[in-house]
Amino acid sequence: MLKIGLLGAGRIAGVHATAISAHAGSTLVAVSDYFPENAQKLAAEYGAEARTTDEIIADPSIDAVLIATSTDTHSDLIEAATAAGKAVLCEKPVDLSLERARTCLANSAPTGQPVMIGFNRRFDPNFGAMKAALDAGEIGKAELLSITSFDPAPPPIAYVKVSGGLFRDMMIHDFDMANFMMDEAPVSVMATASCIVDPEIGAAGDVDTAVVTLTYADGRIAVISNSRRAVYGYDQRVELLGSEGLLQAQNMLENTVVKSTTNGVTGAKPTYFFLERYMPAYAAEWGAFVDALTNGADIPVTLSDGIDALAMAEAATQSAQTGMPVKLGDV
Amino acid sequence: MLKIGLLGAGRIAGVHATAISAHAGSTLVAVSDYFPENAQKLAAEYGAEARTTDEIIADPSIDAVLIATSTDTHSDLIEAATAAGKAVLCEKPVDLSLERARTCLANSAPTGQPVMIGFNRRFDPNFGAMKAALDAGEIGKAELLSITSFDPAPPPIAYVKVSGGLFRDMMIHDFDMANFMMDEAPVSVMATASCIVDPEIGAAGDVDTAVVTLTYADGRIAVISNSRRAVYGYDQRVELLGSEGLLQAQNMLENTVVKSTTNGVTGAKPTYFFLERYMPAYAAEWGAFVDALTNGADIPVTLSDGIDALAMAEAATQSAQTGMPVKLGDV
Amino acid sequence: MLKIGLLGAGRIAGVHATAISAHAGSTLVAVSDYFPENAQKLAAEYGAEARTTDEIIADPSIDAVLIATSTDTHSDLIEAATAAGKAVLCEKPVDLSLERARTCLANSAPTGQPVMIGFNRRFDPNFGAMKAALDAGEIGKAELLSITSFDPAPPPIAYVKVSGGLFRDMMIHDFDMANFMMDEAPVSVMATASCIVDPEIGAAGDVDTAVVTLTYADGRIAVISNSRRAVYGYDQRVELLGSEGLLQAQNMLENTVVKSTTNGVTGAKPTYFFLERYMPAYAAEWGAFVDALTNGADIPVTLSDGIDALAMAEAATQSAQTGMPVKLGDV
Amino acid sequence: MLKIGLLGAGRIAGVHATAISAHAGSTLVAVSDYFPENAQKLAAEYGAEARTTDEIIADPSIDAVLIATSTDTHSDLIEAATAAGKAVLCEKPVDLSLERARTCLANSAPTGQPVMIGFNRRFDPNFGAMKAALDAGEIGKAELLSITSFDPAPPPIAYVKVSGGLFRDMMIHDFDMANFMMDEAPVSVMATASCIVDPEIGAAGDVDTAVVTLTYADGRIAVISNSRRAVYGYDQRVELLGSEGLLQAQNMLENTVVKSTTNGVTGAKPTYFFLERYMPAYAAEWGAFVDALTNGADIPVTLSDGIDALAMAEAATQSAQTGMPVKLGDV
Repeated sequence: MLKIGLLGAGRIAGVHATAISAHAGSTLVAVSDYFPENAQKLAAEYGAEARTTDEIIADPSIDAVLIATSTDTHSDLIEAATAAGKAVLCEKPVDLSLERARTCLANSAPTGQPVMIGFNRRFDPNFGAMKAALDAGEIGKAELLSITSFDPAPPPIAYVKVSGGLFRDMMIHDFDMANFMMDEAPVSVMATASCIVDPEIGAAGDVDTAVVTLTYADGRIAVISNSRRAVYGYDQRVELLGSEGLLQAQNMLENTVVKSTTNGVTGAKPTYFFLERYMPAYAAEWGAFVDALTNGADIPVTLSDGIDALAMAEAATQSAQTGMPVKLGDV
Repeated sequence: MLKIGLLGAGRIAGVHATAISAHAGSTLVAVSDYFPENAQKLAAEYGAEARTTDEIIADPSIDAVLIATSTDTHSDLIEAATAAGKAVLCEKPVDLSLERARTCLANSAPTGQPVMIGFNRRFDPNFGAMKAALDAGEIGKAELLSITSFDPAPPPIAYVKVSGGLFRDMMIHDFDMANFMMDEAPVSVMATASCIVDPEIGAAGDVDTAVVTLTYADGRIAVISNSRRAVYGYDQRVELLGSEGLLQAQNMLENTVVKSTTNGVTGAKPTYFFLERYMPAYAAEWGAFVDALTNGADIPVTLSDGIDALAMAEAATQSAQTGMPVKLGDV
Repeated sequence: MLKIGLLGAGRIAGVHATAISAHAGSTLVAVSDYFPENAQKLAAEYGAEARTTDEIIADPSIDAVLIATSTDTHSDLIEAATAAGKAVLCEKPVDLSLERARTCLANSAPTGQPVMIGFNRRFDPNFGAMKAALDAGEIGKAELLSITSFDPAPPPIAYVKVSGGLFRDMMIHDFDMANFMMDEAPVSVMATASCIVDPEIGAAGDVDTAVVTLTYADGRIAVISNSRRAVYGYDQRVELLGSEGLLQAQNMLENTVVKSTTNGVTGAKPTYFFLERYMPAYAAEWGAFVDALTNGADIPVTLSDGIDALAMAEAATQSAQTGMPVKLGDV
Repeated sequence: MLKIGLLGAGRIAGVHATAISAHAGSTLVAVSDYFPENAQKLAAEYGAEARTTDEIIADPSIDAVLIATSTDTHSDLIEAATAAGKAVLCEKPVDLSLERARTCLANSAPTGQPVMIGFNRRFDPNFGAMKAALDAGEIGKAELLSITSFDPAPPPIAYVKVSGGLFRDMMIHDFDMANFMMDEAPVSVMATASCIVDPEIGAAGDVDTAVVTLTYADGRIAVISNSRRAVYGYDQRVELLGSEGLLQAQNMLENTVVKSTTNGVTGAKPTYFFLERYMPAYAAEWGAFVDALTNGADIPVTLSDGIDALAMAEAATQSAQTGMPVKLGDV
């Protein structure tokens, strides 16, 4: 039974606390947070203790930590935890600074401790089934990947300002999804972006609508479309054209009811947002982490994977600003 | 090139006139109607002559007639045309009287002239593809057939009064579809029916909503649901459970556009009524008739098939009135 | 916090144990079973005690019992538990004997203890959304209900022999679904059934394929189709035609992946069986029971509801044997 | 009744001949072709005369010509026909040379003769319904357009060599679709392309897989994905995210049959290629042309529209070669 410390007690930390507690191979022993009362509240719900982050990292009885704190603390905490001999599952992104993330890898790798990055979508059963079909050769060789990823509504402007921008905060999931599906990182990134949903997002220096094209060494192409607003719900689709067919992972719907009236044939909307859509994925993600620690399975999303996605976000940010394509090797 | 006389110049006759003219192997030479001006108008559109029915039947240069007159004239015209050496394609139903239809068969069969009954739905590409998949063994052995057939809106009460009732007028199509899919007629018919759509239909002595269960000698079962009103359009679906799977023929839609808004995900309605839905079927039906006459192919829907469906309608009518099942051999 | 005793420790009892434990308003304190070691095993998983059924019923600290034992014990246990002042949630069916179920109602009603019957499908989010749309008037007045309910594969013959037959064991769920959607019981039941899936089922005196037509006092009609075998999965669909539209609750699918190849466009199968499909429904069912006990909400499925469904099963069994319709008032 | 001359007698000319003949307001009087025997054959089928192109253009009784010859003759024929006082419907593209197309516009505009370019997809009922919904404000303001357009199989290499390349030959349809949906041309074009389907296409100097991003003056974005091979059929989809929803025009399928087996739930493939998919569009296109000539309706796709699409193809070709975005104003 793995003993787990949870760093952070916000909304996503709560999701992880549920997964940690529900898994037969792990138990939540301690929770910390910048606001100790938040840690106490979350810890109480799961029969764990509230402690400081330092106490958790210093506790030799704790096997692994899940880092769900603010992004600017991720690299420091990965380094501290691995140095203390703990395995780490860290929420995305690794960091807003690509350079800092690379230093973090350099510092933590020598410890030999496993570090996994929380790209939860790889564990969605739909995308997982799609990848399995691809790997089984059901559509031959991959050629052209399209990822559609629209949030239902923009985040608060205060969040936008500290988010690192759409590419590092939102599309980073899609960069990782592209790497997952294509089994490697691209060589070049070309971004087109604008602010047409909400002018305040533009005033905050960010974009809300973007299309990024990725080119791969062997000529394959991927295209990612993002919007901060899809009023009908959380639109999360992936499709991949191969030499022998097409695979599509379509949206999950709120229910299966269809109504036919004089107005047409109407079905339910997509599940509203990531907590509804990806709840099973968070549980599966945790299961994969425990499996890696317990049974020696490979870490399915490594710190290097996290850095690849961050580099693509960095390249896309530069490309959107300059209007020119950016080679991934140049960032 | 087959020379064709068209008996009747109403709406469905116009559909047939188009099919006859468009087919490379047939030409429309004459049209008759109870109202001569209707015959003149339709004939003019297609470069044909308006004549009397007797003249058409007496013309030795005419190879075949298509009977699209009122139902009460069908049997007489089939007999007269076959006696005059003409092949016949007659609109459904053969007759409202099962006895008269049987006499018609007895009288026309000795002429050796081919008589086809216009059950157009057998020629719908969707139902045709479904039957082909069944015949190819794609779902193993047929077990349980369900036919859903809803009209968009009830016909005028004046029509209801002379229609012979829902079973002979509307469900007769579904009886033939059941025989088409199951490759034989059932042994027993049980009908449940009521008037819940429009009380005037009940006042006219008819029902507007009905469910009929058919049982086959080998234990297979079919169920047919009819309603005179589906406000969203013409609902025409067939599904068949077999030992190795399920086949469904779904509705044709007006277009493929899907709209996602805060109200849900809305697609187009089914095509509105039989002219929209079955126009390709009427052309294919005519093609099959010409093929039978020209190339010696089998008549795909015989007068006997028409009588089978009529017998089922008769049995269903009795069953709905008595509340008891009726053996097909007893009508 | 309601203290719950669980009678029975089989597969479905395990599902309920999870729901009881996961609910914030209830705790599982004791489990009994005919085989004490089964009770011990299940109790241990949830931190409860294994006891005898008599001990659980006699324990005044236990607020409610969930009866998940074999069907022949349901009536006795409902009577004993209510007599001991406990609320009851009892698995379907109430009993195989309609007479015994009625006596059970007569005996338990005077205690004033709430008794709920576990027709889990009422709590399926899809059927629930469909009923909510109907109640909101979205398709006007209900007219014609169709329920398709196919199991993926027949149960073992040993189970078939003690099941009470397809109507009491399998279609009873659909009878309750009809009553749920139509808001009352029908007046007449007409069943057609046969054994075409597996001759051993027939040899055991049961049928494996059946269609039942229900007629309501106001002319509405419902039709239920059952098969013990749908090789593609658990097929659970409901559709209802109303005066202003059609509602359909379609199948849940294993995932949303669609593959297009030269063979066609292929999506996932329906979830395989009731545990996969209805797991959320079992949790919602338990929540409704707790809500009724705690907050005074109505019991959503009463013992009378259970008897109605059983009476319909009895009528269908008679109808299938005699080939005649059976009035519900006559059973 | 408009008298029409048809220039060209190849496959697409045959499609147009059918549309011209079937329309009540036009009649096909003459056909020409580089190979006179082809003109004779096609003319005979439709009761028209075979003539030379010069004879047709010189015939004052002919009201309009439909140009369906090889692309390199389009500009010359547009100029000659308009100079002779004839209205023109010309197949796409206007020309492979943007400069020549602009000269053609300059030369033909002063004649005042209407010139329409045959972008048939604007007349597809699905895309038409989508545009109508957009124009009706059903999804608010357009923001992000995605066009997926895959051919079922690559054309012969001989064709590839004279086609002008994927952007001028194939994607030009999608450029026009973007202009149709967005109601204006973009300001900038960025193309990514490669040859991964068939190395012979690359050897011929062309690409077979491409993604193009278009940016509009107001910040809107469009993305077009093309592949020369989708083994499952002709994949023609358009989707548009707006401020209040999403519109999608999905594929037309060969039929509506769905088969559920142990292998999954399989529906029909998309209609195979443009003749199957767009046959109704060709008829509607011709109807719109006749309507413009007869009733004074606007020409729905002008020569300027054709030049806009060609300019986008030119820009995309340059962008794919240089890896840099190209401003539309610079080509």
